[in-house]
Amino acid sequence: MKEKDKPIGIFDSGVGGLTVVKEVIRHLPNESIIYLGDTARVPYGIKSPETVIKYSRQNTNFLKERGIKLLVAACNTSSAVSLSILREETDISVIGVIEPGARAAVRNTKTGNIGVIGTEATIKSGAYEKAINQWSVVSGQWSGKKIEVASKACPMFVPLAEEGWFENEVAEMTAEVYLSDFRGKRIDVLVLGCTHYPLLKKTIQKSVGNRVILIDSAEETPKEIEILLRERGLLSDGKSRFVDFYVTDNPERFSKVGKAFLGENGLSRLSAVDLSNY
Amino acid sequence: MKEKDKPIGIFDSGVGGLTVVKEVIRHLPNESIIYLGDTARVPYGIKSPETVIKYSRQNTNFLKERGIKLLVAACNTSSAVSLSILREETDISVIGVIEPGARAAVRNTKTGNIGVIGTEATIKSGAYEKAINQWSVVSGQWSGKKIEVASKACPMFVPLAEEGWFENEVAEMTAEVYLSDFRGKRIDVLVLGCTHYPLLKKTIQKSVGNRVILIDSAEETPKEIEILLRERGLLSDGKSRFVDFYVTDNPERFSKVGKAFLGENGLSRLSAVDLSNY
Repeated sequence: MKEKDKPIGIFDSGVGGLTVVKEVIRHLPNESIIYLGDTARVPYGIKSPETVIKYSRQNTNFLKERGIKLLVAACNTSSAVSLSILREETDISVIGVIEPGARAAVRNTKTGNIGVIGTEATIKSGAYEKAINQWSVVSGQWSGKKIEVASKACPMFVPLAEEGWFENEVAEMTAEVYLSDFRGKRIDVLVLGCTHYPLLKKTIQKSVGNRVILIDSAEETPKEIEILLRERGLLSDGKSRFVDFYVTDNPERFSKVGKAFLGENGLSRLSAVDLSNY
Repeated sequence: MKEKDKPIGIFDSGVGGLTVVKEVIRHLPNESIIYLGDTARVPYGIKSPETVIKYSRQNTNFLKERGIKLLVAACNTSSAVSLSILREETDISVIGVIEPGARAAVRNTKTGNIGVIGTEATIKSGAYEKAINQWSVVSGQWSGKKIEVASKACPMFVPLAEEGWFENEVAEMTAEVYLSDFRGKRIDVLVLGCTHYPLLKKTIQKSVGNRVILIDSAEETPKEIEILLRERGLLSDGKSRFVDFYVTDNPERFSKVGKAFLGENGLSRLSAVDLSNY
Protein backbone atom coordinates (compact mmCIF):
# COMPACT_ATOMS: atom_id res chain seq x y z
CA MET A 1 0.00 0.00 0.00
CA LYS A 2 1.30 3.48 -0.86
CA GLU A 3 2.07 5.60 2.19
CA LYS A 4 -0.66 8.11 1.30
CA ASP A 5 -3.32 5.42 1.07
CA LYS A 6 -2.64 4.14 4.57
CA PRO A 7 -5.35 4.86 7.13
CA ILE A 8 -5.43 7.53 9.81
CA GLY A 9 -5.42 5.94 13.28
CA ILE A 10 -7.75 7.51 15.83
CA PHE A 11 -8.15 6.40 19.44
CA ASP A 12 -10.32 7.42 22.33
CA SER A 13 -11.25 6.05 25.75
CA GLY A 14 -14.61 5.00 24.36
CA VAL A 15 -17.37 6.34 22.20
CA GLY A 16 -16.62 10.08 22.53
CA GLY A 17 -13.97 10.12 19.80
CA LEU A 18 -16.64 9.33 17.24
CA THR A 19 -17.41 13.06 17.21
CA VAL A 20 -13.91 13.43 15.75
CA VAL A 21 -14.40 10.52 13.31
CA LYS A 22 -17.60 12.10 12.05
CA GLU A 23 -15.84 15.40 11.32
CA VAL A 24 -12.84 13.69 9.70
CA ILE A 25 -15.20 11.78 7.38
CA ARG A 26 -17.02 15.03 6.54
CA HIS A 27 -13.86 17.09 5.88
CA LEU A 28 -11.66 14.35 4.41
CA PRO A 29 -13.99 11.85 2.73
CA ASN A 30 -11.15 10.17 0.82
CA GLU A 31 -9.27 9.08 3.95
CA SER A 32 -9.33 5.59 5.40
CA ILE A 33 -9.70 5.43 9.19
CA ILE A 34 -8.99 2.86 11.90
CA TYR A 35 -10.73 3.78 15.14
CA LEU A 36 -9.98 2.22 18.51
CA GLY A 37 -12.28 2.80 21.50
CA ASP A 38 -10.91 1.52 24.83
CA THR A 39 -14.36 0.66 26.21
CA ALA A 40 -12.96 -1.95 28.64
CA ARG A 41 -11.20 0.78 30.62
CA VAL A 42 -13.37 3.85 29.96
CA PRO A 43 -13.40 6.52 31.38
CA TYR A 44 -9.86 7.96 31.43
CA GLY A 45 -10.77 11.34 32.96
CA ILE A 46 -10.87 10.13 36.58
CA LYS A 47 -7.63 8.12 36.36
CA SER A 48 -4.01 9.05 37.11
CA PRO A 49 -1.61 10.39 34.44
CA GLU A 50 0.53 7.22 34.77
CA THR A 51 -2.43 4.97 34.00
CA VAL A 52 -3.69 7.16 31.13
CA ILE A 53 -0.18 7.13 29.63
CA LYS A 54 -0.02 3.31 29.89
CA TYR A 55 -3.39 2.89 28.19
CA SER A 56 -2.54 5.49 25.49
CA ARG A 57 0.70 3.64 24.72
CA GLN A 58 -1.15 0.34 24.27
CA ASN A 59 -3.71 2.02 22.00
CA THR A 60 -0.89 3.54 19.95
CA ASN A 61 0.95 0.22 19.60
CA PHE A 62 -2.21 -1.51 18.40
CA LEU A 63 -2.91 1.15 15.75
CA LYS A 64 0.72 1.35 14.60
CA GLU A 65 0.75 -2.39 14.02
CA ARG A 66 -2.11 -1.87 11.57
CA GLY A 67 0.04 0.44 9.41
CA ILE A 68 -1.29 3.96 9.92
CA LYS A 69 0.20 7.13 8.40
CA LEU A 70 -0.92 9.48 11.19
CA LEU A 71 -2.11 9.05 14.77
CA VAL A 72 -4.88 11.12 16.37
CA ALA A 73 -5.41 11.03 20.14
CA ALA A 74 -9.07 11.99 20.02
CA CYS A 75 -9.41 11.82 23.79
CA ASN A 76 -8.78 15.14 25.54
CA THR A 77 -7.52 13.44 28.72
CA SER A 78 -5.07 11.35 26.73
CA SER A 79 -3.98 14.40 24.68
CA ALA A 80 -3.50 16.41 27.88
CA VAL A 81 -1.25 13.97 29.71
CA SER A 82 0.35 11.64 27.12
CA LEU A 83 0.82 13.53 23.83
CA SER A 84 4.44 14.60 24.30
CA ILE A 85 5.40 11.05 25.32
CA LEU A 86 3.60 9.46 22.36
CA ARG A 87 5.33 11.95 20.03
CA GLU A 88 8.73 11.07 21.47
CA GLU A 89 8.14 7.34 21.14
CA THR A 90 6.44 7.24 17.74
CA ASP A 91 7.97 7.73 14.28
CA ILE A 92 4.74 8.91 12.63
CA SER A 93 3.04 12.26 13.28
CA VAL A 94 0.79 12.46 16.32
CA ILE A 95 -2.07 14.96 16.60
CA GLY A 96 -4.03 15.65 19.78
CA VAL A 97 -7.23 17.59 20.27
CA ILE A 98 -5.94 20.18 22.76
CA GLU A 99 -3.85 22.26 20.35
CA PRO A 100 -6.55 22.63 17.66
CA GLY A 101 -9.04 23.66 20.35
CA ALA A 102 -6.62 26.12 21.93
CA ARG A 103 -5.86 27.74 18.55
CA ALA A 104 -9.53 28.16 17.74
CA ALA A 105 -10.11 29.70 21.17
CA VAL A 106 -7.34 32.29 20.69
CA ARG A 107 -8.62 33.05 17.16
CA ASN A 108 -12.18 33.66 18.39
CA THR A 109 -11.80 35.58 21.64
CA LYS A 110 -12.15 39.36 21.60
CA THR A 111 -12.07 40.02 25.35
CA GLY A 112 -9.10 37.73 26.02
CA ASN A 113 -11.15 35.81 28.60
CA ILE A 114 -11.40 32.14 27.68
CA GLY A 115 -13.26 29.42 29.57
CA VAL A 116 -12.25 25.75 29.42
CA ILE A 117 -14.27 22.77 30.63
CA GLY A 118 -13.07 19.15 30.69
CA THR A 119 -12.53 16.04 32.79
CA GLU A 120 -10.81 16.11 36.16
CA ALA A 121 -7.52 14.88 34.64
CA THR A 122 -7.58 17.33 31.71
CA ILE A 123 -8.28 20.37 33.89
CA LYS A 124 -5.74 19.27 36.52
CA SER A 125 -3.04 18.94 33.84
CA GLY A 126 -3.34 22.62 32.84
CA ALA A 127 -2.76 21.55 29.21
CA TYR A 128 -5.32 23.91 27.67
CA GLU A 129 -4.04 26.87 29.65
CA LYS A 130 -0.50 26.15 28.49
CA ALA A 131 -1.51 25.63 24.85
CA ILE A 132 -3.66 28.79 24.82
CA ASN A 133 -0.89 30.91 26.31
CA GLN A 134 1.73 29.47 23.92
CA TRP A 135 -0.44 30.01 20.87
CA SER A 136 -1.37 33.54 21.89
CA VAL A 137 2.35 34.35 21.82
CA VAL A 138 3.29 32.33 18.70
CA SER A 139 0.34 33.63 16.67
CA GLY A 140 1.03 37.20 17.71
CA GLN A 141 -2.69 37.70 18.15
CA TRP A 142 -2.38 38.55 21.82
CA SER A 143 1.24 39.56 22.05
CA GLY A 144 1.87 41.87 24.95
CA LYS A 145 -1.58 41.32 26.40
CA LYS A 146 -2.35 38.52 28.82
CA ILE A 147 -5.03 35.99 28.02
CA GLU A 148 -7.05 34.96 31.07
CA VAL A 149 -8.09 31.30 31.19
CA ALA A 150 -10.76 30.12 33.65
CA SER A 151 -11.18 26.36 33.82
CA LYS A 152 -13.62 23.97 35.45
CA ALA A 153 -13.83 20.17 35.67
CA CYS A 154 -17.33 18.87 34.87
CA PRO A 155 -17.24 15.12 35.71
CA MET A 156 -20.99 14.60 35.39
CA PHE A 157 -21.11 15.66 31.71
CA VAL A 158 -19.62 12.36 30.46
CA PRO A 159 -22.18 10.10 32.19
CA LEU A 160 -24.96 12.47 31.13
CA ALA A 161 -23.86 12.15 27.50
CA GLU A 162 -23.47 8.36 27.84
CA GLU A 163 -26.99 8.16 29.28
CA GLY A 164 -28.36 10.17 26.35
CA TRP A 165 -29.60 12.96 28.64
CA PHE A 166 -28.50 15.79 26.36
CA GLU A 167 -31.19 18.37 27.02
CA ASN A 168 -33.42 17.23 29.90
CA GLU A 169 -33.87 19.01 33.22
CA VAL A 170 -31.09 17.02 34.92
CA ALA A 171 -28.64 18.10 32.20
CA GLU A 172 -29.75 21.73 32.51
CA MET A 173 -29.41 21.78 36.28
CA THR A 174 -26.00 20.08 36.14
CA ALA A 175 -24.82 22.70 33.64
CA GLU A 176 -26.04 25.41 36.01
CA VAL A 177 -24.04 23.97 38.90
CA TYR A 178 -20.82 23.77 36.87
CA LEU A 179 -21.07 26.82 34.63
CA SER A 180 -22.65 29.57 36.71
CA ASP A 181 -19.16 30.59 37.92
CA PHE A 182 -18.19 31.61 34.39
CA ARG A 183 -20.81 34.38 34.28
CA GLY A 184 -18.81 36.70 36.51
CA LYS A 185 -15.65 36.14 34.44
CA ARG A 186 -16.65 37.91 31.16
CA ILE A 187 -15.57 34.98 29.00
CA ASP A 188 -16.58 35.23 25.33
CA VAL A 189 -15.25 31.79 24.32
CA LEU A 190 -15.74 28.40 26.02
CA VAL A 191 -13.67 25.37 24.95
CA LEU A 192 -15.54 22.03 25.13
CA GLY A 193 -12.44 20.16 26.29
CA CYS A 194 -13.86 16.63 26.15
CA THR A 195 -15.14 14.73 23.13
CA HIS A 196 -18.40 13.92 24.91
CA TYR A 197 -19.35 17.53 25.56
CA PRO A 198 -20.51 18.50 22.04
CA LEU A 199 -23.47 16.19 22.66
CA LEU A 200 -24.55 18.62 25.40
CA LYS A 201 -23.89 21.69 23.26
CA LYS A 202 -27.42 23.11 23.38
CA THR A 203 -27.65 22.75 27.15
CA ILE A 204 -24.20 24.27 27.69
CA GLN A 205 -24.97 27.16 25.31
CA LYS A 206 -28.22 27.88 27.15
CA SER A 207 -26.40 27.97 30.47
CA VAL A 208 -23.54 30.30 29.45
CA GLY A 209 -25.70 32.46 27.15
CA ASN A 210 -25.74 32.97 23.39
CA ARG A 211 -22.93 35.51 23.32
CA VAL A 212 -20.32 32.92 24.31
CA ILE A 213 -18.75 31.05 21.37
CA LEU A 214 -18.41 27.31 22.02
CA ILE A 215 -15.25 25.68 20.60
CA ASP A 216 -15.62 22.05 19.62
CA SER A 217 -12.23 20.30 19.24
CA ALA A 218 -13.90 17.65 17.09
CA GLU A 219 -14.58 20.29 14.45
CA GLU A 220 -11.13 21.87 14.68
CA THR A 221 -8.99 18.73 14.55
CA PRO A 222 -9.73 17.69 10.93
CA LYS A 223 -8.40 21.07 9.72
CA GLU A 224 -5.11 20.33 11.48
CA ILE A 225 -5.04 16.81 10.01
CA GLU A 226 -5.62 18.18 6.51
CA ILE A 227 -2.85 20.78 6.79
CA LEU A 228 -0.38 18.17 8.01
CA LEU A 229 -1.26 15.55 5.35
CA ARG A 230 -1.20 18.17 2.58
CA GLU A 231 2.21 19.48 3.67
CA ARG A 232 3.65 15.98 3.47
CA GLY A 233 1.89 14.95 0.26
CA LEU A 234 -0.04 12.28 2.16
CA LEU A 235 -3.64 13.11 1.21
CA SER A 236 -5.28 9.99 -0.19
CA ASP A 237 -7.20 9.92 -3.48
CA GLY A 238 -9.83 7.66 -1.90
CA LYS A 239 -9.24 4.44 -3.84
CA SER A 240 -10.00 1.39 -1.67
CA ARG A 241 -11.08 3.61 1.19
CA PHE A 242 -12.31 1.91 4.40
CA VAL A 243 -13.39 2.84 7.93
CA ASP A 244 -12.72 0.15 10.57
CA PHE A 245 -13.73 0.22 14.22
CA TYR A 246 -12.21 -1.71 17.11
CA VAL A 247 -13.31 -1.72 20.76
CA THR A 248 -11.81 -3.44 23.79
CA ASP A 249 -15.24 -4.36 25.19
CA ASN A 250 -18.96 -4.47 24.52
CA PRO A 251 -19.26 -3.91 20.75
CA GLU A 252 -23.08 -4.08 21.03
CA ARG A 253 -23.21 -1.13 23.40
CA PHE A 254 -20.68 0.81 21.28
CA SER A 255 -22.66 0.12 18.15
CA LYS A 256 -25.89 1.37 19.74
CA VAL A 257 -24.38 4.64 20.93
CA GLY A 258 -22.24 4.95 17.79
CA LYS A 259 -25.21 4.98 15.46
CA ALA A 260 -26.29 8.28 17.03
CA PHE A 261 -23.04 9.73 15.66
CA LEU A 262 -22.57 7.98 12.35
CA GLY A 263 -25.96 6.72 11.23
CA GLU A 264 -27.35 3.22 10.83
CA ASN A 265 -24.60 1.81 8.58
CA GLY A 266 -21.65 3.82 9.81
CA LEU A 267 -20.28 1.06 12.02
CA SER A 268 -20.62 -1.99 9.80
CA ARG A 269 -16.95 -2.94 10.24
CA LEU A 270 -16.70 -3.28 14.03
CA SER A 271 -14.59 -5.85 15.96
CA ALA A 272 -13.62 -6.53 19.57
CA VAL A 273 -9.93 -6.65 20.48
CA ASP A 274 -7.82 -7.52 23.56
CA LEU A 275 -4.96 -5.11 24.31
CA SER A 276 -3.31 -7.18 27.09
CA ASN A 277 -0.31 -7.98 24.90
CA TYR A 278 0.30 -4.46 23.52
CA MET B 1 -0.62 -17.81 60.79
CA LYS B 2 -3.60 -19.81 62.05
CA GLU B 3 -6.37 -20.20 59.49
CA LYS B 4 -8.84 -18.22 61.63
CA ASP B 5 -6.46 -15.28 61.95
CA LYS B 6 -6.10 -14.90 58.21
CA PRO B 7 -7.76 -11.82 56.72
CA ILE B 8 -11.05 -11.56 54.84
CA GLY B 9 -10.44 -10.48 51.23
CA ILE B 10 -12.87 -7.92 49.84
CA PHE B 11 -12.81 -6.50 46.32
CA ASP B 12 -14.80 -3.91 44.44
CA SER B 13 -14.50 -2.00 41.17
CA GLY B 14 -13.46 1.07 43.15
CA VAL B 15 -14.45 2.98 46.20
CA GLY B 16 -18.04 1.72 46.57
CA GLY B 17 -17.08 -1.48 48.41
CA LEU B 18 -15.90 0.61 51.34
CA THR B 19 -19.55 0.73 52.46
CA VAL B 20 -19.16 -3.05 52.95
CA VAL B 21 -15.77 -2.67 54.69
CA LYS B 22 -17.26 -0.15 57.09
CA GLU B 23 -20.06 -2.56 58.07
CA VAL B 24 -17.67 -5.53 58.38
CA ILE B 25 -15.46 -3.51 60.73
CA ARG B 26 -18.53 -2.50 62.76
CA HIS B 27 -20.01 -6.02 63.01
CA LEU B 28 -16.77 -8.02 63.16
CA PRO B 29 -14.17 -5.75 64.77
CA ASN B 30 -11.76 -8.63 65.39
CA GLU B 31 -11.36 -9.53 61.73
CA SER B 32 -8.41 -8.53 59.56
CA ILE B 33 -9.31 -7.28 56.09
CA ILE B 34 -7.50 -6.89 52.78
CA TYR B 35 -9.43 -4.63 50.43
CA LEU B 36 -8.75 -4.28 46.71
CA GLY B 37 -10.34 -1.46 44.67
CA ASP B 38 -9.86 -1.79 40.88
CA THR B 39 -9.76 1.97 40.34
CA ALA B 40 -7.77 1.64 37.09
CA ARG B 41 -10.73 -0.02 35.39
CA VAL B 42 -13.71 1.37 37.31
CA PRO B 43 -16.68 1.30 36.60
CA TYR B 44 -17.71 -2.32 35.94
CA GLY B 45 -21.44 -1.66 35.54
CA ILE B 46 -21.25 -0.51 31.89
CA LYS B 47 -18.96 -3.34 30.79
CA SER B 48 -19.68 -6.77 29.32
CA PRO B 49 -19.99 -9.92 31.49
CA GLU B 50 -16.82 -11.35 29.85
CA THR B 51 -14.76 -8.32 30.85
CA VAL B 52 -16.23 -8.17 34.37
CA ILE B 53 -15.42 -11.88 34.82
CA LYS B 54 -11.85 -11.33 33.64
CA TYR B 55 -11.33 -8.42 36.04
CA SER B 56 -12.99 -10.30 38.94
CA ARG B 57 -10.68 -13.28 38.36
CA GLN B 58 -7.60 -11.07 38.51
CA ASN B 59 -8.86 -9.42 41.72
CA THR B 60 -9.47 -12.87 43.23
CA ASN B 61 -6.01 -14.15 42.29
CA PHE B 62 -4.37 -11.11 43.84
CA LEU B 63 -6.27 -11.51 47.13
CA LYS B 64 -5.77 -15.31 47.28
CA GLU B 65 -2.04 -14.83 46.94
CA ARG B 66 -2.17 -12.75 50.12
CA GLY B 67 -3.58 -15.70 52.11
CA ILE B 68 -7.23 -14.90 52.80
CA LYS B 69 -9.69 -17.22 54.55
CA LEU B 70 -12.82 -15.89 52.79
CA LEU B 71 -13.50 -13.84 49.66
CA VAL B 72 -16.19 -11.15 49.39
CA ALA B 73 -17.15 -9.74 45.99
CA ALA B 74 -18.44 -6.43 47.34
CA CYS B 75 -19.30 -5.19 43.84
CA ASN B 76 -22.88 -5.95 42.82
CA THR B 77 -21.98 -6.12 39.13
CA SER B 78 -19.21 -8.60 39.83
CA SER B 79 -21.47 -10.63 42.17
CA ALA B 80 -24.19 -10.67 39.52
CA VAL B 81 -22.11 -11.98 36.63
CA SER B 82 -19.03 -13.72 38.06
CA LEU B 83 -19.92 -15.26 41.44
CA SER B 84 -20.69 -18.80 40.28
CA ILE B 85 -17.47 -18.88 38.24
CA LEU B 86 -15.34 -17.59 41.14
CA ARG B 87 -16.92 -20.21 43.41
CA GLU B 88 -16.11 -22.98 40.95
CA GLU B 89 -12.52 -21.87 40.53
CA THR B 90 -11.69 -21.02 44.17
CA ASP B 91 -11.08 -23.37 47.08
CA ILE B 92 -12.09 -20.88 49.78
CA SER B 93 -15.66 -19.65 50.40
CA VAL B 94 -16.89 -16.82 48.22
CA ILE B 95 -19.64 -14.44 49.30
CA GLY B 96 -21.35 -11.93 47.04
CA VAL B 97 -23.68 -9.07 47.89
CA ILE B 98 -26.69 -10.17 45.82
CA GLU B 99 -27.82 -13.07 48.00
CA PRO B 100 -27.74 -11.18 51.32
CA GLY B 101 -29.69 -8.33 49.70
CA ALA B 102 -32.24 -10.71 48.16
CA ARG B 103 -32.82 -12.51 51.48
CA ALA B 104 -33.38 -9.24 53.34
CA ALA B 105 -35.83 -8.14 50.64
CA VAL B 106 -37.90 -11.34 50.95
CA ARG B 107 -37.82 -11.07 54.74
CA ASN B 108 -39.08 -7.48 54.69
CA THR B 109 -41.76 -7.42 52.00
CA LYS B 110 -45.41 -7.69 53.00
CA THR B 111 -47.02 -7.00 49.62
CA GLY B 112 -44.70 -9.34 47.67
CA ASN B 113 -43.76 -6.44 45.39
CA ILE B 114 -40.02 -5.79 45.46
CA GLY B 115 -38.11 -3.12 43.56
CA VAL B 116 -34.45 -3.50 42.58
CA ILE B 117 -32.12 -0.78 41.31
CA GLY B 118 -28.56 -1.31 40.10
CA THR B 119 -26.08 -0.82 37.27
CA GLU B 120 -26.86 -1.67 33.66
CA ALA B 121 -24.94 -4.98 33.92
CA THR B 122 -26.50 -6.02 37.24
CA ILE B 123 -30.07 -5.36 36.09
CA LYS B 124 -29.47 -6.97 32.70
CA SER B 125 -28.16 -10.14 34.40
CA GLY B 126 -31.46 -10.69 36.26
CA ALA B 127 -29.39 -11.94 39.23
CA TYR B 128 -31.51 -10.24 41.92
CA GLU B 129 -34.75 -11.49 40.40
CA LYS B 130 -33.38 -15.03 40.37
CA ALA B 131 -32.01 -14.83 43.93
CA ILE B 132 -35.25 -13.32 45.27
CA ASN B 133 -37.40 -15.97 43.63
CA GLN B 134 -35.11 -18.79 44.81
CA TRP B 135 -35.05 -17.51 48.37
CA SER B 136 -38.81 -17.00 48.49
CA VAL B 137 -39.17 -20.71 47.74
CA VAL B 138 -36.30 -21.98 49.93
CA SER B 139 -37.31 -19.86 52.91
CA GLY B 140 -40.94 -20.87 52.57
CA GLN B 141 -41.92 -17.29 53.28
CA TRP B 142 -43.68 -16.86 49.95
CA SER B 143 -44.30 -20.45 48.97
CA GLY B 144 -47.21 -20.75 46.64
CA LYS B 145 -47.43 -17.02 46.10
CA LYS B 146 -45.48 -15.27 43.40
CA ILE B 147 -43.14 -12.45 44.31
CA GLU B 148 -43.16 -9.64 41.76
CA VAL B 149 -39.81 -7.99 41.09
CA ALA B 150 -39.61 -4.66 39.24
CA SER B 151 -36.09 -3.59 38.32
CA LYS B 152 -34.50 -0.47 36.91
CA ALA B 153 -30.94 0.41 35.88
CA CYS B 154 -29.84 3.80 37.27
CA PRO B 155 -26.47 4.52 35.60
CA MET B 156 -26.27 8.13 36.79
CA PHE B 157 -26.30 7.22 40.49
CA VAL B 158 -22.66 6.05 40.50
CA PRO B 159 -21.21 9.28 39.04
CA LEU B 160 -23.50 11.30 41.33
CA ALA B 161 -22.09 9.46 44.36
CA GLU B 162 -18.52 9.80 43.05
CA GLU B 163 -19.08 13.56 42.60
CA GLY B 164 -20.37 13.81 46.17
CA TRP B 165 -23.76 15.08 45.02
CA PHE B 166 -25.77 13.02 47.50
CA GLU B 167 -28.68 15.33 48.20
CA ASN B 168 -28.59 18.32 45.87
CA GLU B 169 -31.22 19.25 43.27
CA VAL B 170 -29.49 17.30 40.50
CA ALA B 171 -29.55 14.14 42.63
CA GLU B 172 -33.21 14.66 43.49
CA MET B 173 -34.25 15.21 39.89
CA THR B 174 -32.23 12.19 38.70
CA ALA B 175 -33.96 10.04 41.33
CA GLU B 176 -37.30 11.32 40.07
CA VAL B 177 -36.49 10.30 36.49
CA TYR B 178 -35.42 6.78 37.48
CA LEU B 179 -37.77 6.00 40.36
CA SER B 180 -41.13 7.53 39.47
CA ASP B 181 -42.05 4.30 37.63
CA PHE B 182 -42.01 2.37 40.92
CA ARG B 183 -44.88 4.39 42.36
CA GLY B 184 -47.50 2.63 40.27
CA LYS B 185 -46.09 -0.79 41.20
CA ARG B 186 -46.99 -0.88 44.93
CA ILE B 187 -43.52 -1.97 46.02
CA ASP B 188 -42.88 -1.90 49.77
CA VAL B 189 -39.19 -2.84 49.55
CA LEU B 190 -36.46 -1.40 47.33
CA VAL B 191 -33.05 -3.11 47.06
CA LEU B 192 -30.09 -0.73 46.63
CA GLY B 193 -28.28 -3.10 44.26
CA CYS B 194 -25.02 -1.20 43.97
CA THR B 195 -22.52 -0.35 46.71
CA HIS B 196 -22.55 3.32 45.72
CA TYR B 197 -26.28 3.78 46.21
CA PRO B 198 -26.39 3.90 50.04
CA LEU B 199 -24.62 7.25 49.72
CA LEU B 200 -27.80 8.54 48.01
CA LYS B 201 -30.11 6.89 50.54
CA LYS B 202 -31.86 10.06 51.72
CA THR B 203 -32.56 11.21 48.18
CA ILE B 204 -33.80 7.79 47.09
CA GLN B 205 -36.02 7.49 50.19
CA LYS B 206 -37.52 10.92 49.51
CA SER B 207 -38.31 9.93 45.94
CA VAL B 208 -39.98 6.57 46.66
CA GLY B 209 -41.67 7.72 49.89
CA ASN B 210 -41.15 6.81 53.53
CA ARG B 211 -43.27 3.68 53.42
CA VAL B 212 -40.79 1.83 51.19
CA ILE B 213 -38.05 -0.04 53.10
CA LEU B 214 -34.61 0.41 51.53
CA ILE B 215 -32.35 -2.68 51.62
CA ASP B 216 -28.63 -1.95 51.79
CA SER B 217 -26.51 -4.99 50.83
CA ALA B 218 -23.57 -3.44 52.66
CA GLU B 219 -25.46 -3.85 55.93
CA GLU B 220 -26.67 -7.37 55.16
CA THR B 221 -23.42 -8.92 53.97
CA PRO B 222 -21.51 -8.89 57.33
CA LYS B 223 -24.27 -11.02 58.87
CA GLU B 224 -23.71 -13.63 56.18
CA ILE B 225 -19.94 -13.45 56.70
CA GLU B 226 -20.37 -13.93 60.45
CA ILE B 227 -22.66 -16.98 60.03
CA LEU B 228 -20.24 -18.60 57.64
CA LEU B 229 -17.12 -17.95 59.74
CA ARG B 230 -18.86 -19.08 62.91
CA GLU B 231 -20.06 -22.34 61.29
CA ARG B 232 -16.49 -23.17 60.27
CA GLY B 233 -14.83 -22.05 63.50
CA LEU B 234 -12.99 -19.32 61.63
CA LEU B 235 -13.89 -16.22 63.68
CA SER B 236 -10.70 -14.46 64.72
CA ASP B 237 -9.94 -13.38 68.27
CA GLY B 238 -8.48 -10.13 66.99
CA LYS B 239 -4.83 -10.60 67.91
CA SER B 240 -2.55 -8.86 65.37
CA ARG B 241 -5.55 -7.51 63.50
CA PHE B 242 -4.89 -5.30 60.45
CA VAL B 243 -6.86 -3.60 57.66
CA ASP B 244 -4.93 -3.16 54.39
CA PHE B 245 -6.07 -1.36 51.26
CA TYR B 246 -4.84 -1.80 47.70
CA VAL B 247 -5.93 0.11 44.60
CA THR B 248 -4.93 -0.32 40.96
CA ASP B 249 -4.78 3.44 40.35
CA ASN B 250 -4.85 6.85 41.96
CA PRO B 251 -4.43 6.14 45.71
CA GLU B 252 -4.71 9.90 46.43
CA ARG B 253 -8.19 10.09 44.95
CA PHE B 254 -9.24 6.85 46.68
CA SER B 255 -7.93 8.12 49.98
CA LYS B 256 -9.88 11.38 49.65
CA VAL B 257 -13.19 9.66 48.90
CA GLY B 258 -12.44 6.82 51.33
CA LYS B 259 -12.13 9.14 54.30
CA ALA B 260 -15.82 9.97 53.92
CA PHE B 261 -16.51 6.29 54.64
CA LEU B 262 -13.89 5.37 57.20
CA GLY B 263 -12.77 8.57 58.87
CA GLU B 264 -9.44 10.39 58.80
CA ASN B 265 -7.19 7.47 59.85
CA GLY B 266 -9.15 4.59 58.36
CA LEU B 267 -6.96 4.26 55.28
CA SER B 268 -3.48 4.57 56.74
CA ARG B 269 -2.31 1.30 55.13
CA LEU B 270 -2.97 2.02 51.43
CA SER B 271 -0.80 0.90 48.47
CA ALA B 272 -1.03 0.93 44.68
CA VAL B 273 -0.77 -2.38 42.79
CA ASP B 274 -0.56 -3.52 39.14
CA LEU B 275 -2.78 -6.49 38.22
CA SER B 276 -1.36 -7.08 34.72
CA ASN B 277 0.28 -10.33 35.76
CA TYR B 278 -2.66 -11.81 37.69
